[in-house]
Amino acid sequence: MEFPSKVLEDAVNELSRLPGIGKKTALRLAMHILRGQDAAAETLGNSIVALRKQVLFCDTCANISDGPQCKICSSHRRDHGLICVVEDCKDVIAIENTGQYTGSYHVLGGLIHPMQGKGPGDLNIGSLLSRLSASTVKEVIFALPSTMEGDMTAFYISKRLSDFGVQVSSIARGIPVGSDLEFTDEITLARSLMNRTAFSVNTGNSAL
Amino acid sequence: MEFPSKVLEDAVNELSRLPGIGKKTALRLAMHILRGQDAAAETLGNSIVALRKQVLFCDTCANISDGPQCKICSSHRRDHGLICVVEDCKDVIAIENTGQYTGSYHVLGGLIHPMQGKGPGDLNIGSLLSRLSASTVKEVIFALPSTMEGDMTAFYISKRLSDFGVQVSSIARGIPVGSDLEFTDEITLARSLMNRTAFSVNTGNSAL
Repeated sequence: MEFPSKVLEDAVNELSRLPGIGKKTALRLAMHILRGQDAAAETLGNSIVALRKQVLFCDTCANISDGPQCKICSSHRRDHGLICVVEDCKDVIAIENTGQYTGSYHVLGGLIHPMQGKGPGDLNIGSLLSRLSASTVKEVIFALPSTMEGDMTAFYISKRLSDFGVQVSSIARGIPVGSDLEFTDEITLARSLMNRTAFSVNTGNSAL
Repeated sequence: MEFPSKVLEDAVNELSRLPGIGKKTALRLAMHILRGQDAAAETLGNSIVALRKQVLFCDTCANISDGPQCKICSSHRRDHGLICVVEDCKDVIAIENTGQYTGSYHVLGGLIHPMQGKGPGDLNIGSLLSRLSASTVKEVIFALPSTMEGDMTAFYISKRLSDFGVQVSSIARGIPVGSDLEFTDEITLARSLMNRTAFSVNTGNSAL
């Protein structure tokens, strides 16, 4: 692609480094920024720089935070006897959006992935174990993706947790609410039959 | 969406203002920037600010430019007797990528769109007319989208051009190269029959 301006070319090249954004989309975004107001471009640019420079990670759970302790870890309303282990900060946001979970989190920062050369040492597993030995944690809940890497990571951590005598659970796998049986894949359907629960009228409003 | 950090929230809000990027995609982009290197975020942020602050528009053709005159308008290799009228700077890039056009351009900066309150006064039509009166332009080529707004704009400008005695043409509408007749819409097919050209073995390498 031939650009009429070096500044435009730089911006398009930088934008197209973002995931899921190709050269054509980057050009469309750049043209949108160009047509917009001066202040809007400056706010966007500065917020991206600030994102990388100012965001901290919680010392306890490794979640994104504005200070050394995140809002959840420093809250007295949360149940710190319950730790939900997730892959990523995005998963914390997803679970928080349900409004049903009142425990704390632990962000691993990835999964064990031998093909990508990622071992247990690359994840925040040590800090999870030290949290367990320091405080009175009753239960650890795995909320990891149901992929081979997710299962492998959960298995490895559960082995390491066995010394602490803590209860270990995993979020339920099954048929999503509102979806049809006929469109569900065989493995999910088989698992949901295997892990069937006692029938009860569930209003969905009972917080953990 | 509840965010663990104000800085992250700001960045997601700013990113989701871009066209085609919703909150979830913005969060994915923000997480990518967070995981990346410090320098990458700074380069991206600064290039966005620079884009809005440093990019100029050519005094002659209103195309994006690094100086008061764009590369094309200041080039001695281009045929300045030929002006291709386009909606947007993106169209200039698209036509330049073909490598077949050696004339100059004129960027209107939009189309006549009464529903959006855009009239001829909002477009760079006056500067096009003054180019025609100042220099010896032989032909004006319309390369506008084949929508109602595009046709309306072309019609309006062609009326204004009638005093100058300049040749006015429009890029060909027809069946795209490599596409099947059966999948072409009726209007395009009808137009391509109506505007049929004399058969010749075209190598596609003859520059204008």
